[in-house]
Amino acid sequence: MSGAARLIGVGVGPGDPELMTLKAVRALREADVVAHFAKEGRTGNARTIVAAYLEDGSVELPLRYPVTTEIPVADPAYGSAIDAFFDASAETIARHLDEGRTVAVLSEGDPLFFGSYMHIHMRLSHRYPTEVIPGVTSLSGCWSAAGIALAQGDDVLSVVPGTLPDEALAARFAGGDAIAVIKVGRNLPRIRAAVAASGRLAGAVYVERGTMPEGRIMPLAEKTDGKAPYFAVVLVPARRAPR
Amino acid sequence: MSGAARLIGVGVGPGDPELMTLKAVRALREADVVAHFAKEGRTGNARTIVAAYLEDGSVELPLRYPVTTEIPVADPAYGSAIDAFFDASAETIARHLDEGRTVAVLSEGDPLFFGSYMHIHMRLSHRYPTEVIPGVTSLSGCWSAAGIALAQGDDVLSVVPGTLPDEALAARFAGGDAIAVIKVGRNLPRIRAAVAASGRLAGAVYVERGTMPEGRIMPLAEKTDGKAPYFAVVLVPARRAPR
Repeated sequence: MSGAARLIGVGVGPGDPELMTLKAVRALREADVVAHFAKEGRTGNARTIVAAYLEDGSVELPLRYPVTTEIPVADPAYGSAIDAFFDASAETIARHLDEGRTVAVLSEGDPLFFGSYMHIHMRLSHRYPTEVIPGVTSLSGCWSAAGIALAQGDDVLSVVPGTLPDEALAARFAGGDAIAVIKVGRNLPRIRAAVAASGRLAGAVYVERGTMPEGRIMPLAEKTDGKAPYFAVVLVPARRAPR
Repeated sequence: MSGAARLIGVGVGPGDPELMTLKAVRALREADVVAHFAKEGRTGNARTIVAAYLEDGSVELPLRYPVTTEIPVADPAYGSAIDAFFDASAETIARHLDEGRTVAVLSEGDPLFFGSYMHIHMRLSHRYPTEVIPGVTSLSGCWSAAGIALAQGDDVLSVVPGTLPDEALAARFAGGDAIAVIKVGRNLPRIRAAVAASGRLAGAVYVERGTMPEGRIMPLAEKTDGKAPYFAVVLVPARRAPR
């Protein structure tokens, strides 16, 4: 035990364990408690990524998402269940902090970029000394694996959740921004339709687990089965005026 | 010499050398040639970041930006000078690749995220085996240092170059997206005016060298001197409906 109560959000990168930062590896080794999110009965992605770097005898604190598959995401009951889960998780972590322990909370990608860690951060960072160790995002991992520069010069790059309603998706693609769609999963057919309707299907790329051995990269035009994991991304380069 | 011609774009992260990935450190050590961009007479930021990780006797290839301070950026002569520079840099690198060497090109942040490396990538990746090692972006570094989650849930996060004209900047802030402004520098007064006009000044944060000991983080409202380095960022959280 280090005797220093500290909350650390640790970005562990997009999947390849070698894409962790030196600072993240050190934080893991120095932490008294390593917390990580996962679904019941599964090992979370972040925990899998750090497996080789955990010290023997590390105290682990798995935080199990509530089983919500039977509740539609749009149902207020879903939001309540998730909020209650983050409240309870934060209090569990707070008890360790109150004992003077350093708690590292693992976060796939970058902790404050659309990850679960932010919900712990919002609840605890005003109460305890807190540090956030940034990580390589899944987006950087995916466009690096695909070798695509989405934006350059004065281009705007927009990160768009695939969970947006159809009209909002259509409006995004109608403009000229470079677009990276995250949270793809079951939204893939809607996303693909919106890209096609905008006339930008030809340049669009689908990437799944970009930095992992089982990764897949293909033109979105050829991705017609409509099936994608939640962490897949769709990359659409900026629309450029012909030169 | 490794005997394997390979171009590697190496993301070295936002500034703190400990925010390099394990993979980037390995790539540096295995490379035959380490190329890096800098202004004449200066050590580039990326080269500074990796200083502790270079092997003794590494072959370095500094790529010196042409002196263009006397040419306005909007002048076509500026674009021509920069294009000619990237053409010549790519050919210098190609000569090493033709000799069977592995050439690592350093890139601050993430190689394909608004960095100079992309110009080498576009010229050489179809000619030689190429790998891109993603890095932590300066944006992740800055919002982690500030402890701010700009976007969550269905929010769109837009990365906006501060070099955009006034009207384009104003249009961006008029919407509700979370916005991260890059390429701040001399554009700071225009950026600040656009944020203020949109009514979002209260939540906006200015960050300079976020991950470095000399870093500065302050409310944008208090940043009134109009002076900023090129790599400073302005962070504006998503506009949220009152709950």
